Amino acid sequence: VTHDHPPGRVVAVLGRGLVAADQPILRADDLGALRGEGIFETMHVRAGQAWLLDAHLDRMTRSADRLSLPLPDRTQLVELAELALSAWPAAEGALRLSVTRGPEDGGPPTVYATVFAVTAPTRAARRDGISVLTASLGYPVHARTSAPWLLGGAKTVSYAVNMASQRWAQQQGAQDVLWISTDGYALEAPTSTLIWLDGRRLCTVPATSTGILAGITAQWLLSHADELGYEAAEQLVRPAELAGAAGVWLVSSVRGLAEIRILDHVARPACEATAKLAAVLGFPD
Amino acid sequence: VTHDHPPGRVVAVLGRGLVAADQPILRADDLGALRGEGIFETMHVRAGQAWLLDAHLDRMTRSADRLSLPLPDRTQLVELAELALSAWPAAEGALRLSVTRGPEDGGPPTVYATVFAVTAPTRAARRDGISVLTASLGYPVHARTSAPWLLGGAKTVSYAVNMASQRWAQQQGAQDVLWISTDGYALEAPTSTLIWLDGRRLCTVPATSTGILAGITAQWLLSHADELGYEAAEQLVRPAELAGAAGVWLVSSVRGLAEIRILDHVARPACEATAKLAAVLGFPD
Repeated sequence: VTHDHPPGRVVAVLGRGLVAADQPILRADDLGALRGEGIFETMHVRAGQAWLLDAHLDRMTRSADRLSLPLPDRTQLVELAELALSAWPAAEGALRLSVTRGPEDGGPPTVYATVFAVTAPTRAARRDGISVLTASLGYPVHARTSAPWLLGGAKTVSYAVNMASQRWAQQQGAQDVLWISTDGYALEAPTSTLIWLDGRRLCTVPATSTGILAGITAQWLLSHADELGYEAAEQLVRPAELAGAAGVWLVSSVRGLAEIRILDHVARPACEATAKLAAVLGFPD
Repeated sequence: VTHDHPPGRVVAVLGRGLVAADQPILRADDLGALRGEGIFETMHVRAGQAWLLDAHLDRMTRSADRLSLPLPDRTQLVELAELALSAWPAAEGALRLSVTRGPEDGGPPTVYATVFAVTAPTRAARRDGISVLTASLGYPVHARTSAPWLLGGAKTVSYAVNMASQRWAQQQGAQDVLWISTDGYALEAPTSTLIWLDGRRLCTVPATSTGILAGITAQWLLSHADELGYEAAEQLVRPAELAGAAGVWLVSSVRGLAEIRILDHVARPACEATAKLAAVLGFPD
């Protein structure tokens, strides 16, 4: 592939093919930029492939349903991902697939794929763990259960609160936030899923009843719990209970497994299980 | 002005000038489209001017502060708006000013202005009033007061829930939603501000303590309450209290004043004050 692009980023647009990364692709009236009306999935690129692509496309289909967003055929999405990956060197990376509602006055969705490098802070978080602050998400734990217009479980691009939450933590020297419901349960992080060890049980927060995002990488890990000698479980948890757990991690598709080593300014001992979980997940160091 | 654009939409981009409406202006990695990291203001265009431009730019500055988003000088924003308006015919319209965080790997914000026509359904809502359904916003009324990362009061482009709420209402034959807190107070609509008549008091919901958006057009109207023989007031209200009010309206910058004529499937008598309020606001029929 000879198409010109800045190092570290490939862009492919449905209906147009590969384009230079600095070339604009969205109109001023694209509802993705005007109203955050779009959905996305981010995947880990390893050995030239998007890891867990099928599961991510399944979740994208559920997100599209919740937004009444017309999605291209799955074959077209897979081919677009493959086109972007074909221009990426044989190195670790991240693939993001984005679908917006397109121009405000009608017209097809804007569909594009980008591949980009994994940053040094992301690799450091895998290796060294992270410092996390809890912060309210403003919702009672079951507020979104029977309110589909609140888009619980949909991975939309309307992430301003997600980004502001992470900025708030970073301004205080932490790396990430763990959102808490107004009634005191841990929910999820702005771009990752909470898992923890409760004895021999490898646990996560139930997605359907809480409106959090069902984490693809976390679900994959829990589906391999028995290989690791654990039992997978979904349950609600309070931060005080997490303080007593043998291990607590945030899991996401690109950062992979990041152990929470400091929670609300209190250091936690390193968990012996971290290396074992990381080995199963197979992210590079 | 001879620049080519489809009827009904003008686009001007900071640093580039007028561009065709169908020409892409945002890169694939623009954080406005990737993460809903952008802010906007929409204004009514009358007599070739953006009405209440200063107040909208003041609110945009507050939104930018809450998102830690670098905003161009106010002079540049005003000149950009004037450039877009210079290409608009002497007709009613809407001006939208948008600022996104720009490319993910750094680079300046993307700043653009668009002018577009007011739609027939919008004009019909002014004339005939609207049917509105109440729906939970998921938050307790004061959940966002002391949680700045939840971006209360910031007008961001992360509007997926706003749009989904309106779609939900429209699927049931209504035109709009009135969001309710989990503890039962009316808050705001997805793109407009609630006002109502309580005797001689023209009321709205307090913005600072609830995290709702401070409505520019509603505030302007309340600041003219005494000319209308009313006293302006900010207070919390429950839907059952609205049912007994002489008049209930949703107010926004482009639709202007829309009387709620049906609330949760119950018809309300037309309010005699609607014509008087509309005359002060000065939107065309």
